[in-house]
Amino acid sequence: MNRLSLNTATTKYLTLAECIDVATRCGLEAIGPWRDRVQEVGTDKARHLIDAAGLRVSTLCRGGFLTARDTDAIDAALADNRLAIDEASTLGTHELVMVVGGLPSAFASMGLAHSDADDEDRDLVAARQRVADRLGDLVPYARERGVRLALEPMHPLFTADRGVLTTLGQSLDMAADHSPAEVGVVVDTYHVWWDPNLRESIARAGQEGRVSSYQVCDWILPLAANTLNSRGMMGDGYIDFPTITSWVRDTGYNGDIEVEIFNETIWAQPGQVTVNTMQERYRKLVEPYL
Amino acid sequence: MNRLSLNTATTKYLTLAECIDVATRCGLEAIGPWRDRVQEVGTDKARHLIDAAGLRVSTLCRGGFLTARDTDAIDAALADNRLAIDEASTLGTHELVMVVGGLPSAFASMGLAHSDADDEDRDLVAARQRVADRLGDLVPYARERGVRLALEPMHPLFTADRGVLTTLGQSLDMAADHSPAEVGVVVDTYHVWWDPNLRESIARAGQEGRVSSYQVCDWILPLAANTLNSRGMMGDGYIDFPTITSWVRDTGYNGDIEVEIFNETIWAQPGQVTVNTMQERYRKLVEPYL
Repeated sequence: MNRLSLNTATTKYLTLAECIDVATRCGLEAIGPWRDRVQEVGTDKARHLIDAAGLRVSTLCRGGFLTARDTDAIDAALADNRLAIDEASTLGTHELVMVVGGLPSAFASMGLAHSDADDEDRDLVAARQRVADRLGDLVPYARERGVRLALEPMHPLFTADRGVLTTLGQSLDMAADHSPAEVGVVVDTYHVWWDPNLRESIARAGQEGRVSSYQVCDWILPLAANTLNSRGMMGDGYIDFPTITSWVRDTGYNGDIEVEIFNETIWAQPGQVTVNTMQERYRKLVEPYL
Repeated sequence: MNRLSLNTATTKYLTLAECIDVATRCGLEAIGPWRDRVQEVGTDKARHLIDAAGLRVSTLCRGGFLTARDTDAIDAALADNRLAIDEASTLGTHELVMVVGGLPSAFASMGLAHSDADDEDRDLVAARQRVADRLGDLVPYARERGVRLALEPMHPLFTADRGVLTTLGQSLDMAADHSPAEVGVVVDTYHVWWDPNLRESIARAGQEGRVSSYQVCDWILPLAANTLNSRGMMGDGYIDFPTITSWVRDTGYNGDIEVEIFNETIWAQPGQVTVNTMQERYRKLVEPYL
């Protein structure tokens, strides 16, 4: 089984059909679609296209953004997440990746609806509690549809504006209120490589049966002007893939390994070049340690 | 007592004498000099200037960069750190801030001496062990001179190139081999604000008697093109100073509160404007919670 999966954000400018085409031509067996590319064709059609190509859906990206404080914004977030759960279910994937959202004081910079009171709100402890509360709201809906909410801790670069969950350990603590079939965690090397407790937290995630996805991309320097797009191809930066991969292997994780890279230079390449490079680096830095 | 201290990096383009002048004119009682501004005039002269102005030295910035692998580079790092310890002793400060250094594979990007073998080295676990080893080498020398080595965990933005210590908890674990008079930790809001275990780790640092310095500056977005210079004035970003300050207060910490901001826009201002703004924000966001 070829466990390498193309996250559609890595070939950002390709449609879903084009992603499927390049993935199958390169011999991949799985893709991890983003919702925008799914919605563009409609979820049923997306499922049909993916099935027809014989691909697995490793995860759906992404739900989340659960830190709103006022009722209308909370309702909107819950509605969008229920839709994401429906989409995951229709696509036949068990794993919905959750990027949990940032501080209310950063909502304006994210283009999210906000109030004047939000602008003053820097309470990280309370924002994290709201994520836990919203997760509780969503779990029954997801469970009924066979979808697991996969919490993705984000690099602390993104704590203010994108993700108040910063470590795997913290994500596992939050998951603990729910069963392993309901809430899992994403191990994305870009977000967690720096964590001094990484080895222990990956082992714990394995023991608890909560590893929803293993994702690989590299930490490169200098950061891009838009820091969101600073991710690099494996081997181009500073992450020790053999070591982290062996820690994930030791949990018994046998799912797909997704490559999700936000990088303007990579996006400007033909998709086939990107996927070929991704395969070459995977064979050298990841696969031997699985 | 006025506990606000001007770190000379906040007024980067001022000489030590100019920093002392603006600090005293604004009614501050302490400064935290960087070594370049001390060495420029000579350490004895620096001590004389600071004493004559009636200022305390809150910390000396900085020693560290302890992750080298080969003998010559290790010897050079130890020699430079012994010099930093001598300078701290001459200046009459107990606290030498230690930025521990990054991965060998990032040495070239930092302009540090390196070998071809370094370029391949992404072993974060081993780099952290070398920091612990070098700390052990330096402690006896520092102890004899009444200087405490103050480990500064760095934001994970800097793990690759500047500091493989990323959390206060990890820094305390490393400090544990030494007495609290020998090795302490720096609580710099910029570096630690995102940490889900921050409250517990600050409390632990207090219980162990290891809080060497409390430093305040803000996390602002977007990051500057040179990410090192992305720090903001308190109140301009996303950090919850009242909450973190109250956690530090609860440890019984009664030392100075340093402001160390790397920011091109702030550096371009007259020093007095910077110090006045710093005082105003300190009075609003920090002092009431001490």
